[in-house]
Amino acid sequence: MNKNRKALVVFSGGQDSTTCLFWAKANFEEVEAVTFEYGQRHYQEIEVAKSIANDLGVRHHVLDMSLLNQLAPSALTRKDQKIEHDEGELPSTFVPGRNLLFMSFAAVLAKQIGARHLVTGVCETDFSGYPDCRDIFIKSLNVTINLSMSEDFVIHTPLMWLNKEQTWELADHLDALEYVRDRTLTCYNGVQGEGCRECPACLLRNQGMVNYLNRKEEKI
Amino acid sequence: MNKNRKALVVFSGGQDSTTCLFWAKANFEEVEAVTFEYGQRHYQEIEVAKSIANDLGVRHHVLDMSLLNQLAPSALTRKDQKIEHDEGELPSTFVPGRNLLFMSFAAVLAKQIGARHLVTGVCETDFSGYPDCRDIFIKSLNVTINLSMSEDFVIHTPLMWLNKEQTWELADHLDALEYVRDRTLTCYNGVQGEGCRECPACLLRNQGMVNYLNRKEEKI
Repeated sequence: MNKNRKALVVFSGGQDSTTCLFWAKANFEEVEAVTFEYGQRHYQEIEVAKSIANDLGVRHHVLDMSLLNQLAPSALTRKDQKIEHDEGELPSTFVPGRNLLFMSFAAVLAKQIGARHLVTGVCETDFSGYPDCRDIFIKSLNVTINLSMSEDFVIHTPLMWLNKEQTWELADHLDALEYVRDRTLTCYNGVQGEGCRECPACLLRNQGMVNYLNRKEEKI
Repeated sequence: MNKNRKALVVFSGGQDSTTCLFWAKANFEEVEAVTFEYGQRHYQEIEVAKSIANDLGVRHHVLDMSLLNQLAPSALTRKDQKIEHDEGELPSTFVPGRNLLFMSFAAVLAKQIGARHLVTGVCETDFSGYPDCRDIFIKSLNVTINLSMSEDFVIHTPLMWLNKEQTWELADHLDALEYVRDRTLTCYNGVQGEGCRECPACLLRNQGMVNYLNRKEEKI
């Protein structure tokens, strides 16, 4: 694609970003990964991300984004409000526009480590309702970060138009289906691999896999 | 300009952003200000910013951006490197693209406090060499932050095409020349008001004032 063959993957240790990490390993000479720690995810997710990056031989940056708490509605209205987090719901620390902040930080980090390519697993297909997962936002951001640093970054979104079934297919093509199935963490209840099988994330993930495997079998 | 008459000013307590604060007070019904604390400025600057916001009756947010240190070249290469800061030079914590990060945080904060208007004192005239002070960057960012949150923010840059002399003229038109002269802090050596009169910031600021006052006198 370009002389600079180094990529930085925005990486959470879940199915989507782990598939992106395999994709980046297949498409770039050098790959690093960055995980944002913001007190909103299971601590276990950071550990899972670390171990996957280690398995794949990828240098892994963990950035402390706890300052996001300063911007949460709770922090701005009542300083003494307790931060709560019910499973499967948006926590009171939820901050709109946080993907803008994460991607901007990723771009600044990419500049610092000399990577021209940024990879993120955002996806418009299972539209989450977050405007900053849309393709048009990513494209506009790409222009803005390039202007901000007089650089020529390319943001890659290999999952943008895939549904979950197709994301499993991509993992399979990358010879990573079993690894992604067994080692990633998507489950709201913090169960690695196939998960609790009950939460919305598990249902979506497992239905996608079943659909893909059925389709694959029909072909044979 | 618009039904939503609330503005958030990105505010450091220096000449430019204080002039912008007076400008915002003259143009909007409600004004708040945000200062970014990132261990790169004199601690005194934060105190000056607080006292000016207090004088003007403006609600003042101070956001801790010390996480920027995680992105400094020193932090990424040698964990044990001491952070140094020589007067008048870029400190080793300097992070390219930091205006992208600050403006993005300001936008998220604006969303949280219900302000539609963002005001920043960036200026292309005395071009600093920072690509993220350019008008084209600000315009692109405006589109990007609107897409990121499905909002209709307007970024105002009243100083974009003014030189220092014209910035003094604007302060004078806002009946704020004496206040800005006496109470703001621009000096690299941390001297409030007219400053040390020797550092590059003082020379630029004072020459601008002399030029403006001379021109004003000729008119009379």
